[in-house]
Amino acid sequence: MDIQDLTRQLHIKNNSKIVMLVADGLGGLPLVPGGKTELETAATPQLDALAVRGVQGGSVPVLPGITPGSGPGHLALFGYDPLKYLIGRGALEATGVGFALQAGDVAVRCNFCTLDRAGNICDRRAGRISSHQSAPLAISLRQIEVPGVEVFVEPVKDHRFVVVFRGDGLTGDVADTDPQATGVPPLDPAATRPEGEKTVRAAKAFLQQARSLLAGQDKANFLTMRGFAGKPRLPTYEEVYGLRAAAIAVYPMYKGLAQLVGMTVLGAPTTLDEQVDVMARHWLDFDFFFLHFKYTDSSGEDGDFEAKVKFTAQFDACIPRVAALKPDVLIVTGDHSTPAALKSHSWHPVPTLLVSNCCRPDPCTTFGESQCLGGGLGQFEAKYLMTLALANAGRLGKYGA
Amino acid sequence: MDIQDLTRQLHIKNNSKIVMLVADGLGGLPLVPGGKTELETAATPQLDALAVRGVQGGSVPVLPGITPGSGPGHLALFGYDPLKYLIGRGALEATGVGFALQAGDVAVRCNFCTLDRAGNICDRRAGRISSHQSAPLAISLRQIEVPGVEVFVEPVKDHRFVVVFRGDGLTGDVADTDPQATGVPPLDPAATRPEGEKTVRAAKAFLQQARSLLAGQDKANFLTMRGFAGKPRLPTYEEVYGLRAAAIAVYPMYKGLAQLVGMTVLGAPTTLDEQVDVMARHWLDFDFFFLHFKYTDSSGEDGDFEAKVKFTAQFDACIPRVAALKPDVLIVTGDHSTPAALKSHSWHPVPTLLVSNCCRPDPCTTFGESQCLGGGLGQFEAKYLMTLALANAGRLGKYGA
Repeated sequence: MDIQDLTRQLHIKNNSKIVMLVADGLGGLPLVPGGKTELETAATPQLDALAVRGVQGGSVPVLPGITPGSGPGHLALFGYDPLKYLIGRGALEATGVGFALQAGDVAVRCNFCTLDRAGNICDRRAGRISSHQSAPLAISLRQIEVPGVEVFVEPVKDHRFVVVFRGDGLTGDVADTDPQATGVPPLDPAATRPEGEKTVRAAKAFLQQARSLLAGQDKANFLTMRGFAGKPRLPTYEEVYGLRAAAIAVYPMYKGLAQLVGMTVLGAPTTLDEQVDVMARHWLDFDFFFLHFKYTDSSGEDGDFEAKVKFTAQFDACIPRVAALKPDVLIVTGDHSTPAALKSHSWHPVPTLLVSNCCRPDPCTTFGESQCLGGGLGQFEAKYLMTLALANAGRLGKYGA
Repeated sequence: MDIQDLTRQLHIKNNSKIVMLVADGLGGLPLVPGGKTELETAATPQLDALAVRGVQGGSVPVLPGITPGSGPGHLALFGYDPLKYLIGRGALEATGVGFALQAGDVAVRCNFCTLDRAGNICDRRAGRISSHQSAPLAISLRQIEVPGVEVFVEPVKDHRFVVVFRGDGLTGDVADTDPQATGVPPLDPAATRPEGEKTVRAAKAFLQQARSLLAGQDKANFLTMRGFAGKPRLPTYEEVYGLRAAAIAVYPMYKGLAQLVGMTVLGAPTTLDEQVDVMARHWLDFDFFFLHFKYTDSSGEDGDFEAKVKFTAQFDACIPRVAALKPDVLIVTGDHSTPAALKSHSWHPVPTLLVSNCCRPDPCTTFGESQCLGGGLGQFEAKYLMTLALANAGRLGKYGA
């Protein structure tokens, strides 16, 4: 039985408010043996005060040792088993640029590439041309017409863009056309299951016209297609938790992920302060608020320990304004760790803090990776965080008599 | 989804080396309230030094409260769900003496026993006769002929030997003939499911002829059969992890277990020092080394606390030579606990230590059961240890985008 099979049955509606603050990539590592992590190094007086009142632990995004991407990382925080629900690469990319996928759409990640005169790939990323150069090219591909299929093209970043095919009978059962090598031509689209044939025909028609349209380009004279994927079928927050949920994010990817589980995306904030403004403004309209803070992750990916420390402190400073709204349950967590030492996402458990009037406090006095080890939440799979949130909000009934 | 479904997809090859040192039955119990365990009592300066650098926790071999045999205990350490994969005892014993089981074979663990004049068992282990005496007797049983079935007999150790039946339609669905008591006759072979009938007939024919052949013996004048089992189907380390794996063990059981998951058994070492010699000699040829140390378990089984303490210290002393090889990931664990106080395997979590350059250190300063409670690995199912090993070796890609 899935944890959401339980919450579907047991959830109760009341007037409580739950806030989940996600500092992306929050967990870290010390730079030197015996040193402190980014979170432990940062001045976080607000989070430490919450640690005294609340309960903390380490959330394991997927399973021990498994490093998640942003998709599974957030699905788990939202209470969706990340091994059961998969978001295809194309669907995630489309979501990431704010494209509202519909059921039946097939999204594809595309890379501009460079072909030599013989038609072989000589650069799989078209010299990593800048967004400045590539976005107009991607937009020029919008003139492509595929009979019976609606085609959308959205620039992403650098050499990357996304194509969405919309029409009856399309599926994601198509293999990548990127041969993952140079000196050979791109592969032709090929179905991985018979159901993919109609999408194959659409992709071939698209590629044929794109070849003509791009023929005059120096670098981006063709493209490869990867990660064909339909819109994932995810039950909504309303269905599984009975929650009216809102998402407040700066980056399209996280707005998109939240939309996939039925959250309403609020406002167009560009700073953490504006995000909190948006939350305050809509405080009465929703039961659950997901607020996403990106820079703890991006600084970690950059390997910039000091920047991650700085952004962690900046994140800490938003706490009083959120706390002033008096949420019944306040959660602070991350979707995964992004240690600056590794310059990448990692598998390490993520420091997670939960404050409510009925959490059972633990002896922790600060918020951090080492303190978490003695925290009352122990180490737990992230997919259980929402159940804990609902319980602490008085929103879960008893299981069995 | 099984954890190995993930590692199959996500594993990456690189030049890292992983060493898993298994002190069999490592976990223990204090003899008196407030006392220390065997591991905590032993002088383990080397393991304590690793505890400072690394991360520790308690591994739960199968599930809380479940005491494993050597088979499930090791399968779990190797990352194979011990509830999904079962190895019959006969299959394990046969593999352990280097017998290459084929699909369809049925292997049986046999004990020489002593019958009195009435045909009742008076010694279930034939006075624990030495291998020196029993091996020729076992070999003499090779003259037994069973129509339509090929029979193999292999000496094991002391009063133990193994019989393998090969032929069409044989299965392991046969109950043990050992009544687990003296003063009663051995049981007749009986099928536990209808499919076992052909094997029952082969076993009866074998026993009848063996009774005649052994009739003149003082001690070993008959035998009991246990653990009828076919060859288990296990994917290999290469398949699920992309690892070239080697096993360095003294006892046949552990060599056999390692072979079943595709490890190469190295050398014929008889001491821990020789085992480390073998590891050093083959260091460049493999990615993963499993080294098995038996005596922490056998002393625990004997209920000899002091001996277990001594063997634990002896195990500790091998660490510097292993560490000198500079493995990227060094794991120290056991397949289960064997507290001298219980004189048997137990369900208690097993102290487990992992050292790598990217483990997140914890506040532990010594290696032991109490320290494990505050360790960064928390309590975890042993089947996740390999995922953690691969992650720490940089051998696992990201799950999802």
